[in-house]
Amino acid sequence: MNSVASIDKEKLYVVKIGGNIIDDEHKLHNFLETFSSVKALKILVHGGGKIATTLGEKLGITSNYINGRRITDDATIDLVTMVYGGLINKKIVASLQSLNCNAIGVTGADANLIPAIKRPVKDIDFGWVGDIIENDNDSNWKVLLKTGLTPVVAPLSHNGEGKLLNINADTIASAIAVQLAKAYNVSLIYCFEKNGVLKNVDDEQSVIAKINREIFTGLANENVVNTGMLPKIENALNALDKGVNKIVIGKAEDLLNNISEDVKGTIFYK
Amino acid sequence: MNSVASIDKEKLYVVKIGGNIIDDEHKLHNFLETFSSVKALKILVHGGGKIATTLGEKLGITSNYINGRRITDDATIDLVTMVYGGLINKKIVASLQSLNCNAIGVTGADANLIPAIKRPVKDIDFGWVGDIIENDNDSNWKVLLKTGLTPVVAPLSHNGEGKLLNINADTIASAIAVQLAKAYNVSLIYCFEKNGVLKNVDDEQSVIAKINREIFTGLANENVVNTGMLPKIENALNALDKGVNKIVIGKAEDLLNNISEDVKGTIFYK
Repeated sequence: MNSVASIDKEKLYVVKIGGNIIDDEHKLHNFLETFSSVKALKILVHGGGKIATTLGEKLGITSNYINGRRITDDATIDLVTMVYGGLINKKIVASLQSLNCNAIGVTGADANLIPAIKRPVKDIDFGWVGDIIENDNDSNWKVLLKTGLTPVVAPLSHNGEGKLLNINADTIASAIAVQLAKAYNVSLIYCFEKNGVLKNVDDEQSVIAKINREIFTGLANENVVNTGMLPKIENALNALDKGVNKIVIGKAEDLLNNISEDVKGTIFYK
Repeated sequence: MNSVASIDKEKLYVVKIGGNIIDDEHKLHNFLETFSSVKALKILVHGGGKIATTLGEKLGITSNYINGRRITDDATIDLVTMVYGGLINKKIVASLQSLNCNAIGVTGADANLIPAIKRPVKDIDFGWVGDIIENDNDSNWKVLLKTGLTPVVAPLSHNGEGKLLNINADTIASAIAVQLAKAYNVSLIYCFEKNGVLKNVDDEQSVIAKINREIFTGLANENVVNTGMLPKIENALNALDKGVNKIVIGKAEDLLNNISEDVKGTIFYK
Protein backbone atom coordinates (compact mmCIF):
# COMPACT_ATOMS: atom_id res chain seq x y z
CA MET A 1 0.00 0.00 0.00
CA ASN A 2 2.98 2.31 0.58
CA SER A 3 4.61 3.42 -2.62
CA VAL A 4 8.40 3.30 -2.57
CA ALA A 5 8.63 7.07 -3.01
CA SER A 6 6.47 7.77 0.02
CA ILE A 7 8.82 5.93 2.35
CA ASP A 8 11.52 8.58 1.91
CA LYS A 9 9.16 11.47 2.50
CA GLU A 10 8.42 12.97 5.90
CA LYS A 11 5.17 11.81 7.43
CA LEU A 12 2.29 14.31 7.59
CA TYR A 13 -1.09 13.71 9.17
CA VAL A 14 -4.09 15.66 7.91
CA VAL A 15 -6.80 15.12 10.51
CA LYS A 16 -10.39 16.23 10.11
CA ILE A 17 -12.87 16.64 12.96
CA GLY A 18 -16.55 17.52 12.69
CA GLY A 19 -19.42 18.72 14.82
CA ASN A 20 -19.65 15.58 16.96
CA ILE A 21 -16.30 16.47 18.53
CA ILE A 22 -16.47 20.28 18.25
CA ASP A 23 -19.87 20.50 19.99
CA ASP A 24 -18.73 18.49 23.03
CA GLU A 25 -16.23 20.43 25.16
CA HIS A 26 -14.99 17.31 26.94
CA LYS A 27 -14.56 15.30 23.74
CA LEU A 28 -12.82 18.22 22.06
CA HIS A 29 -10.38 18.59 24.92
CA ASN A 30 -9.56 14.88 24.90
CA PHE A 31 -9.15 14.93 21.16
CA LEU A 32 -6.83 17.95 21.23
CA GLU A 33 -4.75 16.36 23.99
CA THR A 34 -4.20 13.26 21.88
CA PHE A 35 -3.72 15.25 18.68
CA SER A 36 -1.11 17.50 20.29
CA SER A 37 0.84 14.44 21.43
CA VAL A 38 1.31 13.23 17.84
CA LYS A 39 4.96 13.98 17.15
CA ALA A 40 4.83 13.96 13.33
CA LEU A 41 3.93 16.97 11.19
CA LYS A 42 0.20 17.54 11.35
CA ILE A 43 -2.63 19.72 10.09
CA LEU A 44 -6.05 19.87 11.74
CA VAL A 45 -9.13 20.65 9.66
CA HIS A 46 -12.33 21.39 11.55
CA GLY A 47 -15.90 21.62 10.41
CA GLY A 48 -18.68 23.65 11.91
CA GLY A 49 -21.02 22.48 14.58
CA LYS A 50 -24.34 23.27 16.14
CA ILE A 51 -23.16 26.69 17.28
CA ALA A 52 -23.48 28.22 13.80
CA THR A 53 -27.07 27.03 13.61
CA THR A 54 -27.91 28.17 17.15
CA LEU A 55 -26.32 31.56 16.58
CA GLY A 56 -27.99 31.88 13.19
CA GLU A 57 -31.38 31.27 14.80
CA LYS A 58 -30.72 33.91 17.45
CA LEU A 59 -29.77 36.37 14.72
CA GLY A 60 -32.74 35.46 12.56
CA ILE A 61 -30.50 34.05 9.83
CA THR A 62 -32.49 31.15 8.48
CA SER A 63 -30.93 28.55 6.25
CA ASN A 64 -32.31 28.70 2.75
CA TYR A 65 -32.60 25.51 0.79
CA ILE A 66 -33.21 24.94 -2.90
CA ASN A 67 -34.06 21.35 -3.84
CA GLY A 68 -32.83 20.29 -0.42
CA ARG A 69 -29.43 21.95 -0.92
CA ARG A 70 -28.36 24.63 1.50
CA ILE A 71 -27.67 28.06 0.03
CA THR A 72 -24.96 30.32 1.46
CA ASP A 73 -26.34 33.84 1.17
CA ASP A 74 -24.63 37.06 2.36
CA ALA A 75 -25.83 36.70 5.95
CA THR A 76 -24.82 33.03 6.08
CA ILE A 77 -21.26 33.55 4.81
CA ASP A 78 -20.82 36.27 7.47
CA LEU A 79 -22.19 33.88 10.08
CA VAL A 80 -19.88 30.99 9.19
CA THR A 81 -16.90 33.32 8.83
CA MET A 82 -17.53 34.44 12.41
CA VAL A 83 -18.17 31.00 13.84
CA TYR A 84 -15.83 28.76 11.83
CA GLY A 85 -13.06 31.28 11.07
CA GLY A 86 -13.28 33.07 14.41
CA LEU A 87 -14.82 31.33 17.38
CA ILE A 88 -14.15 27.64 16.70
CA ASN A 89 -10.81 28.17 14.99
CA LYS A 90 -9.29 30.47 17.62
CA LYS A 91 -10.60 28.42 20.56
CA ILE A 92 -8.91 25.35 19.11
CA VAL A 93 -5.71 27.34 18.55
CA ALA A 94 -5.68 28.61 22.15
CA SER A 95 -6.31 25.08 23.48
CA LEU A 96 -3.52 23.59 21.38
CA GLN A 97 -1.16 26.36 22.51
CA SER A 98 -1.91 25.40 26.11
CA LEU A 99 -0.93 21.83 25.19
CA ASN A 100 2.43 22.98 23.80
CA CYS A 101 1.33 22.52 20.22
CA ASN A 102 2.28 25.66 18.27
CA ALA A 103 -0.95 26.04 16.33
CA ILE A 104 -1.74 28.70 13.74
CA GLY A 105 -5.35 29.15 12.66
CA VAL A 106 -5.99 29.71 8.96
CA THR A 107 -8.63 29.61 6.28
CA GLY A 108 -7.89 28.91 2.62
CA ALA A 109 -7.85 32.68 2.07
CA ASP A 110 -4.92 33.18 4.45
CA ALA A 111 -1.63 33.16 2.53
CA ASN A 112 -3.86 32.04 -0.37
CA LEU A 113 -3.34 28.50 0.92
CA ILE A 114 -6.37 27.02 -0.83
CA PRO A 115 -7.40 28.96 -3.95
CA ALA A 116 -11.07 28.50 -4.79
CA ILE A 117 -13.85 29.79 -7.02
CA LYS A 118 -17.51 30.39 -6.37
CA ARG A 119 -19.33 27.24 -7.42
CA PRO A 120 -20.53 27.80 -11.00
CA VAL A 121 -24.29 28.17 -11.35
CA LYS A 122 -25.89 25.31 -13.24
CA ASP A 123 -29.38 24.51 -12.03
CA ILE A 124 -28.85 26.06 -8.61
CA ASP A 125 -26.94 29.12 -7.40
CA PHE A 126 -25.48 27.89 -4.14
CA GLY A 127 -24.40 31.41 -3.20
CA TRP A 128 -21.03 31.80 -1.49
CA VAL A 129 -20.04 28.16 -1.75
CA GLY A 130 -16.57 27.43 -3.04
CA ASP A 131 -15.02 24.80 -5.24
CA ILE A 132 -11.31 24.34 -4.65
CA ILE A 133 -9.00 25.01 -7.59
CA GLU A 134 -6.82 21.96 -7.82
CA ASN A 135 -3.17 22.93 -7.54
CA ASP A 136 0.10 21.62 -6.19
CA ASN A 137 1.48 24.90 -4.85
CA ASP A 138 2.64 23.73 -1.46
CA SER A 139 5.24 26.39 -0.69
CA ASN A 140 3.37 28.32 2.02
CA TRP A 141 2.19 25.11 3.68
CA LYS A 142 5.80 23.94 3.73
CA VAL A 143 6.97 27.19 5.33
CA LEU A 144 4.45 26.80 8.15
CA LEU A 145 5.23 23.11 8.72
CA LYS A 146 9.02 23.61 8.57
CA THR A 147 8.72 26.36 11.17
CA GLY A 148 7.21 23.81 13.55
CA LEU A 149 3.72 25.26 13.28
CA THR A 150 0.55 23.17 13.22
CA PRO A 151 -2.03 24.70 10.88
CA VAL A 152 -5.62 24.59 12.13
CA VAL A 153 -7.86 25.05 9.11
CA ALA A 154 -11.41 26.45 9.10
CA PRO A 155 -13.61 25.30 6.19
CA LEU A 156 -13.52 28.62 4.33
CA SER A 157 -11.63 30.09 1.44
CA HIS A 158 -11.92 32.96 -1.03
CA ASN A 159 -12.46 33.58 -4.72
CA GLY A 160 -9.47 35.85 -5.31
CA GLU A 161 -11.87 38.74 -5.88
CA GLY A 162 -12.40 39.65 -2.25
CA LYS A 163 -15.22 37.28 -1.36
CA LEU A 164 -15.05 34.54 1.26
CA LEU A 165 -16.47 31.12 0.39
CA ASN A 166 -17.95 28.32 2.44
CA ILE A 167 -16.35 24.94 1.69
CA ASN A 168 -17.18 21.49 2.99
CA ALA A 169 -14.61 20.48 5.63
CA ASP A 170 -14.18 16.94 4.26
CA THR A 171 -13.40 18.43 0.88
CA ILE A 172 -10.90 20.90 2.35
CA ALA A 173 -9.16 18.07 4.20
CA SER A 174 -8.78 15.88 1.12
CA ALA A 175 -7.71 18.85 -1.03
CA ILE A 176 -4.93 19.70 1.45
CA ALA A 177 -3.87 16.04 1.59
CA VAL A 178 -3.64 15.96 -2.21
CA GLN A 179 -1.92 19.36 -2.39
CA LEU A 180 0.83 18.10 -0.06
CA ALA A 181 1.12 14.53 -1.35
CA LYS A 182 4.08 15.39 -3.59
CA ALA A 183 6.16 16.69 -0.70
CA TYR A 184 5.02 14.50 2.19
CA ASN A 185 3.94 10.97 2.97
CA VAL A 186 0.38 11.99 3.80
CA SER A 187 -2.09 10.11 5.95
CA LEU A 188 -5.59 11.58 5.83
CA ILE A 189 -7.67 10.80 8.91
CA TYR A 190 -11.37 11.49 9.08
CA CYS A 191 -12.56 11.45 12.69
CA PHE A 192 -16.13 10.42 12.75
CA GLU A 193 -18.93 9.53 15.18
CA LYS A 194 -18.97 5.89 14.06
CA ASN A 195 -16.31 3.18 14.30
CA GLY A 196 -15.75 3.38 10.56
CA VAL A 197 -17.78 2.87 7.41
CA LEU A 198 -20.55 0.51 8.55
CA LYS A 199 -22.34 -2.11 6.50
CA ASN A 200 -25.29 -1.68 8.82
CA VAL A 201 -25.57 1.83 10.18
CA ASP A 202 -27.20 0.52 13.38
CA ASP A 203 -24.44 -1.98 14.08
CA GLU A 204 -21.16 -0.43 15.26
CA GLN A 205 -19.51 -3.80 14.84
CA SER A 206 -20.23 -3.95 11.11
CA VAL A 207 -17.16 -1.89 10.16
CA ILE A 208 -15.93 -2.46 6.64
CA ALA A 209 -12.20 -2.79 7.37
CA LYS A 210 -10.90 -2.03 3.90
CA ILE A 211 -12.32 -0.26 0.89
CA ASN A 212 -10.89 0.19 -2.57
CA ARG A 213 -12.64 1.33 -5.72
CA GLU A 214 -13.81 -2.15 -6.64
CA ILE A 215 -15.27 -2.82 -3.21
CA PHE A 216 -16.85 0.65 -3.23
CA THR A 217 -18.61 0.00 -6.54
CA GLY A 218 -19.98 -3.21 -5.09
CA LEU A 219 -21.18 -1.49 -1.92
CA ALA A 220 -22.80 1.34 -3.88
CA ASN A 221 -24.60 -1.10 -6.15
CA GLU A 222 -25.86 -3.18 -3.24
CA ASN A 223 -27.00 -0.04 -1.36
CA VAL A 224 -25.34 -1.37 1.79
CA VAL A 225 -23.69 1.88 2.80
CA ASN A 226 -25.54 4.88 4.21
CA THR A 227 -25.93 7.29 1.28
CA GLY A 228 -24.49 10.11 3.39
CA MET A 229 -21.20 8.19 3.38
CA LEU A 230 -20.95 7.87 -0.39
CA PRO A 231 -19.41 11.31 -1.12
CA LYS A 232 -16.98 10.81 1.80
CA ILE A 233 -15.84 7.51 0.30
CA GLU A 234 -15.66 8.93 -3.22
CA ASN A 235 -13.54 11.79 -1.84
CA ALA A 236 -11.20 9.34 -0.14
CA LEU A 237 -10.69 7.16 -3.21
CA ASN A 238 -10.02 10.22 -5.38
CA ALA A 239 -7.41 11.44 -2.89
CA LEU A 240 -5.64 8.07 -3.08
CA ASP A 241 -5.58 8.32 -6.88
CA LYS A 242 -3.91 11.70 -6.49
CA GLY A 243 -1.04 10.49 -4.33
CA VAL A 244 -2.29 10.48 -0.74
CA ASN A 245 -0.67 7.51 0.93
CA LYS A 246 -3.26 6.35 3.44
CA ILE A 247 -6.80 7.30 4.40
CA VAL A 248 -8.69 6.15 7.46
CA ILE A 249 -12.22 6.85 8.67
CA GLY A 250 -13.19 6.04 12.23
CA LYS A 251 -13.55 7.21 15.81
CA ALA A 252 -11.06 9.85 16.91
CA GLU A 253 -10.00 7.95 20.02
CA ASP A 254 -9.28 4.77 18.05
CA LEU A 255 -7.39 6.54 15.31
CA LEU A 256 -5.17 8.96 17.13
CA ASN A 257 -4.17 6.81 20.05
CA ASN A 258 -2.64 4.32 17.66
CA ILE A 259 -1.76 6.68 14.90
CA SER A 260 1.32 4.83 13.72
CA GLU A 261 0.06 1.33 14.33
CA ASP A 262 -2.74 -0.68 12.86
CA VAL A 263 -5.84 1.33 13.47
CA LYS A 264 -9.44 0.40 13.89
CA GLY A 265 -11.82 2.03 11.45
CA THR A 266 -12.00 1.77 7.70
CA ILE A 267 -8.78 1.96 5.72
CA PHE A 268 -8.86 2.97 2.06
CA TYR A 269 -6.40 1.55 -0.42
CA LYS A 270 -5.85 1.68 -4.14
CA MET B 1 15.77 60.94 14.60
CA ASN B 2 17.06 57.90 12.74
CA SER B 3 19.58 55.93 14.69
CA VAL B 4 22.58 54.78 12.67
CA ALA B 5 21.71 51.12 13.26
CA SER B 6 18.20 51.53 11.89
CA ILE B 7 19.48 52.69 8.50
CA ASP B 8 20.91 49.25 7.77
CA LYS B 9 17.78 47.41 8.76
CA GLU B 10 14.95 46.58 6.40
CA LYS B 11 11.99 48.91 6.65
CA LEU B 12 8.79 47.55 8.25
CA TYR B 13 5.52 49.41 8.56
CA VAL B 14 3.14 48.49 11.36
CA VAL B 15 -0.15 50.16 10.48
CA LYS B 16 -3.16 50.30 12.79
CA ILE B 17 -6.72 51.02 11.68
CA GLY B 18 -9.77 51.41 13.89
CA GLY B 19 -13.53 51.49 13.67
CA ASN B 20 -13.75 54.70 11.66
CA ILE B 21 -12.23 52.88 8.68
CA ILE B 22 -13.52 49.36 9.39
CA ASP B 23 -17.15 50.47 9.66
CA ASP B 24 -17.13 52.25 6.29
CA GLU B 25 -16.91 49.80 3.39
CA HIS B 26 -15.82 52.46 0.93
CA LYS B 27 -13.15 53.91 3.24
CA LEU B 28 -11.89 50.42 4.06
CA HIS B 29 -11.57 49.52 0.40
CA ASN B 30 -9.66 52.73 -0.36
CA PHE B 31 -7.43 52.17 2.63
CA LEU B 32 -6.65 48.57 1.66
CA GLU B 33 -5.90 49.63 -1.91
CA THR B 34 -3.33 52.13 -0.70
CA PHE B 35 -2.00 49.79 1.98
CA SER B 36 -1.52 46.96 -0.53
CA SER B 37 0.47 49.28 -2.80
CA VAL B 38 3.10 49.89 -0.10
CA LYS B 39 6.07 47.89 -1.32
CA ALA B 40 7.95 47.59 1.98
CA LEU B 41 7.32 44.86 4.57
CA LYS B 42 4.12 45.60 6.42
CA ILE B 43 1.79 44.41 9.15
CA LEU B 44 -1.80 45.58 9.51
CA VAL B 45 -3.42 45.70 12.96
CA HIS B 46 -7.17 46.27 13.07
CA GLY B 47 -9.47 47.13 15.91
CA GLY B 48 -13.12 46.33 16.26
CA GLY B 49 -15.94 48.48 15.09
CA LYS B 50 -19.62 49.00 15.52
CA ILE B 51 -20.44 45.53 14.27
CA ALA B 52 -19.42 43.86 17.56
CA THR B 53 -21.76 46.17 19.45
CA THR B 54 -24.62 45.74 16.97
CA LEU B 55 -24.24 41.97 16.98
CA GLY B 56 -23.92 41.90 20.75
CA GLU B 57 -27.20 43.78 21.05
CA LYS B 58 -28.95 41.33 18.73
CA LEU B 59 -27.62 38.44 20.81
CA GLY B 60 -28.55 40.11 24.09
CA ILE B 61 -24.90 40.42 25.12
CA THR B 62 -24.76 43.67 27.00
CA SER B 63 -21.52 45.35 27.85
CA ASN B 64 -20.85 45.33 31.56
CA TYR B 65 -18.99 48.23 33.06
CA ILE B 66 -17.38 48.63 36.47
CA ASN B 67 -16.33 52.20 37.33
CA GLY B 68 -16.74 53.09 33.67
CA ARG B 69 -14.38 50.32 32.53
CA ARG B 70 -15.71 47.68 30.18
CA ILE B 71 -15.58 44.09 31.43
CA THR B 72 -14.95 41.20 29.03
CA ASP B 73 -17.09 38.35 30.33
CA ASP B 74 -17.45 34.87 28.75
CA ALA B 75 -20.11 35.97 26.27
CA THR B 76 -18.14 39.07 25.28
CA ILE B 77 -14.86 37.26 24.59
CA ASP B 78 -16.79 34.83 22.36
CA LEU B 79 -18.41 37.78 20.60
CA VAL B 80 -15.15 39.62 19.90
CA THR B 81 -13.43 36.39 18.90
CA MET B 82 -16.13 35.91 16.27
CA VAL B 83 -16.22 39.48 15.06
CA TYR B 84 -12.57 40.58 15.35
CA GLY B 85 -10.85 37.22 14.83
CA GLY B 86 -13.36 35.93 12.27
CA LEU B 87 -15.50 38.37 10.36
CA ILE B 88 -13.37 41.53 10.23
CA ASN B 89 -10.05 39.74 10.02
CA LYS B 90 -10.98 37.34 7.22
CA LYS B 91 -12.83 39.98 5.19
CA ILE B 92 -9.71 42.14 5.25
CA VAL B 93 -7.58 39.13 4.28
CA ALA B 94 -9.85 38.29 1.32
CA SER B 95 -9.82 41.94 0.18
CA LEU B 96 -6.04 42.18 0.38
CA GLN B 97 -5.71 38.90 -1.52
CA SER B 98 -7.82 40.40 -4.31
CA LEU B 99 -5.36 43.32 -4.37
CA ASN B 100 -2.38 40.98 -4.82
CA CYS B 101 -1.26 41.43 -1.23
CA ASN B 102 -0.57 37.98 0.23
CA ALA B 103 -2.24 38.52 3.59
CA ILE B 104 -2.43 36.04 6.46
CA GLY B 105 -4.87 36.75 9.29
CA VAL B 106 -3.66 36.08 12.82
CA THR B 107 -4.34 36.81 16.46
CA GLY B 108 -1.63 36.85 19.12
CA ALA B 109 -2.59 33.25 19.93
CA ASP B 110 -1.67 32.03 16.45
CA ALA B 111 1.90 30.75 16.40
CA ASN B 112 2.03 32.26 19.90
CA LEU B 113 2.97 35.53 18.18
CA ILE B 114 1.99 37.77 21.10
CA PRO B 115 2.14 36.00 24.48
CA ALA B 116 -0.17 37.59 27.04
CA ILE B 117 -1.64 37.13 30.49
CA LYS B 118 -5.07 37.85 31.87
CA ARG B 119 -4.91 41.32 33.40
CA PRO B 120 -4.19 40.84 37.12
CA VAL B 121 -7.10 41.73 39.38
CA LYS B 122 -6.40 44.76 41.54
CA ASP B 123 -9.50 46.83 42.21
CA ILE B 124 -11.36 45.53 39.21
CA ASP B 125 -11.53 42.14 37.50
CA PHE B 126 -11.64 43.10 33.84
CA GLY B 127 -12.47 39.54 32.83
CA TRP B 128 -10.84 38.20 29.68
CA VAL B 129 -8.69 41.24 29.02
CA GLY B 130 -5.04 40.62 28.27
CA ASP B 131 -1.79 42.34 29.08
CA ILE B 132 0.97 41.58 26.63
CA ILE B 133 4.08 39.88 28.01
CA GLU B 134 6.95 41.99 26.78
CA ASN B 135 9.35 39.86 24.76
CA ASP B 136 11.67 40.11 21.80
CA ASN B 137 10.95 36.72 20.26
CA ASP B 138 10.52 37.75 16.67
CA SER B 139 11.26 34.44 14.93
CA ASN B 140 7.75 33.54 13.77
CA TRP B 141 7.06 37.11 12.65
CA LYS B 142 10.27 36.97 10.65
CA VAL B 143 9.26 33.70 9.00
CA LEU B 144 5.96 35.20 7.85
CA LEU B 145 7.53 38.43 6.60
CA LYS B 146 10.43 36.66 4.84
CA THR B 147 7.92 34.45 3.06
CA GLY B 148 6.36 37.57 1.55
CA LEU B 149 3.26 37.38 3.71
CA THR B 150 1.52 40.41 5.19
CA PRO B 151 0.16 39.62 8.67
CA VAL B 152 -3.27 41.05 9.43
CA VAL B 153 -3.63 41.09 13.20
CA ALA B 154 -6.89 40.98 15.17
CA PRO B 155 -6.74 42.52 18.66
CA LEU B 156 -6.84 39.21 20.53
CA SER B 157 -4.35 36.90 22.16
CA HIS B 158 -4.28 34.07 24.70
CA ASN B 159 -3.04 33.32 28.19
CA GLY B 160 -1.14 30.12 27.38
CA GLU B 161 -3.73 28.19 29.38
CA GLY B 162 -6.31 27.86 26.65
CA LYS B 163 -8.18 31.12 27.11
CA LEU B 164 -8.48 33.88 24.53
CA LEU B 165 -7.98 37.47 25.65
CA ASN B 166 -9.26 40.81 24.40
CA ILE B 167 -6.47 43.34 23.87
CA ASN B 168 -6.62 46.99 22.86
CA ALA B 169 -5.61 47.31 19.19
CA ASP B 170 -3.36 50.35 19.78
CA THR B 171 -1.51 48.37 22.42
CA ILE B 172 -1.15 45.34 20.11
CA ALA B 173 0.24 47.59 17.37
CA SER B 174 2.86 49.21 19.58
CA ALA B 175 3.80 45.86 21.15
CA ILE B 176 4.44 44.37 17.69
CA ALA B 177 6.43 47.45 16.66
CA VAL B 178 8.59 47.07 19.78
CA GLN B 179 8.88 43.28 19.39
CA LEU B 180 10.28 43.76 15.87
CA ALA B 181 12.38 46.88 16.47
CA LYS B 182 15.57 44.85 16.95
CA ALA B 183 15.29 43.22 13.54
CA TYR B 184 13.65 45.94 11.44
CA ASN B 185 13.60 49.67 10.98
CA VAL B 186 10.02 50.01 12.23
CA SER B 187 7.60 52.82 11.46
CA LEU B 188 4.41 52.62 13.50
CA ILE B 189 1.46 54.35 11.88
CA TYR B 190 -1.80 54.96 13.70
CA CYS B 191 -4.58 55.74 11.22
CA PHE B 192 -7.07 57.94 12.89
CA GLU B 193 -10.23 59.95 12.18
CA LYS B 194 -8.44 63.25 12.80
CA ASN B 195 -5.56 64.92 10.97
CA GLY B 196 -3.26 64.18 13.90
CA VAL B 197 -3.07 65.04 17.56
CA LEU B 198 -5.04 68.28 17.79
CA LYS B 199 -4.53 71.15 20.19
CA ASN B 200 -8.18 71.96 19.74
CA VAL B 201 -10.29 68.89 19.07
CA ASP B 202 -12.77 70.98 17.05
CA ASP B 203 -10.12 72.45 14.81
CA GLU B 204 -8.65 70.02 12.29
CA GLN B 205 -5.98 72.59 11.46
CA SER B 206 -4.60 72.60 15.00
CA VAL B 207 -2.40 69.54 14.44
CA ILE B 208 0.59 69.31 16.75
CA ALA B 209 3.25 68.45 14.18
CA LYS B 210 5.80 66.96 16.55
CA ILE B 211 5.63 65.49 20.03
CA ASN B 212 8.39 64.25 22.28
CA ARG B 213 8.23 63.47 25.98
CA GLU B 214 8.94 67.03 27.02
CA ILE B 215 6.25 68.49 24.79
CA PHE B 216 3.85 65.78 25.95
CA THR B 217 4.36 66.64 29.60
CA GLY B 218 3.62 70.27 28.76
CA LEU B 219 0.47 69.35 26.84
CA ALA B 220 -0.76 67.06 29.60
CA ASN B 221 -0.19 69.74 32.23
CA GLU B 222 -1.99 72.38 30.20
CA ASN B 223 -4.89 70.00 29.49
CA VAL B 224 -4.74 71.00 25.83
CA VAL B 225 -5.06 67.50 24.42
CA ASN B 226 -8.25 65.44 24.46
CA THR B 227 -7.86 63.04 27.39
CA GLY B 228 -8.76 60.11 25.11
CA MET B 229 -5.50 60.81 23.27
CA LEU B 230 -3.27 60.66 26.31
CA PRO B 231 -2.84 56.85 26.49
CA LYS B 232 -2.24 56.78 22.70
CA ILE B 233 0.54 59.34 23.08
CA GLU B 234 2.00 57.61 26.13
CA ASN B 235 2.01 54.34 24.15
CA ALA B 236 3.81 56.03 21.26
CA LEU B 237 6.52 57.59 23.41
CA ASN B 238 7.13 54.30 25.21
CA ALA B 239 7.51 52.51 21.87
CA LEU B 240 10.14 55.05 20.80
CA ASP B 241 12.04 54.42 24.03
CA LYS B 242 12.01 50.73 23.16
CA GLY B 243 13.57 51.10 19.73
CA VAL B 244 10.75 51.88 17.31
CA ASN B 245 12.18 54.29 14.75
CA LYS B 246 9.23 56.48 13.84
CA ILE B 247 5.64 56.90 14.94
CA VAL B 248 2.96 58.89 13.18
CA ILE B 249 -0.68 59.55 14.03
CA GLY B 250 -3.01 61.00 11.43
CA LYS B 251 -5.52 60.36 8.67
CA ALA B 252 -5.02 57.16 6.71
CA GLU B 253 -5.13 58.88 3.33
CA ASP B 254 -2.48 61.42 4.32
CA LEU B 255 -0.17 58.87 5.87
CA LEU B 256 -0.19 56.02 3.41
CA ASN B 257 -0.17 57.99 0.18
CA ASN B 258 3.12 59.57 1.21
CA ILE B 259 4.43 56.81 3.34
CA SER B 260 8.10 57.40 2.61
CA GLU B 261 7.95 61.18 2.35
CA ASP B 262 7.17 63.88 4.84
CA VAL B 263 3.74 63.06 6.13
CA LYS B 264 0.99 65.18 7.52
CA GLY B 265 -0.16 64.21 10.97
CA THR B 266 1.70 64.15 14.25
CA ILE B 267 5.20 62.69 14.31
CA PHE B 268 6.66 61.43 17.57
CA TYR B 269 10.36 61.68 18.29
CA LYS B 270 12.66 60.99 21.21
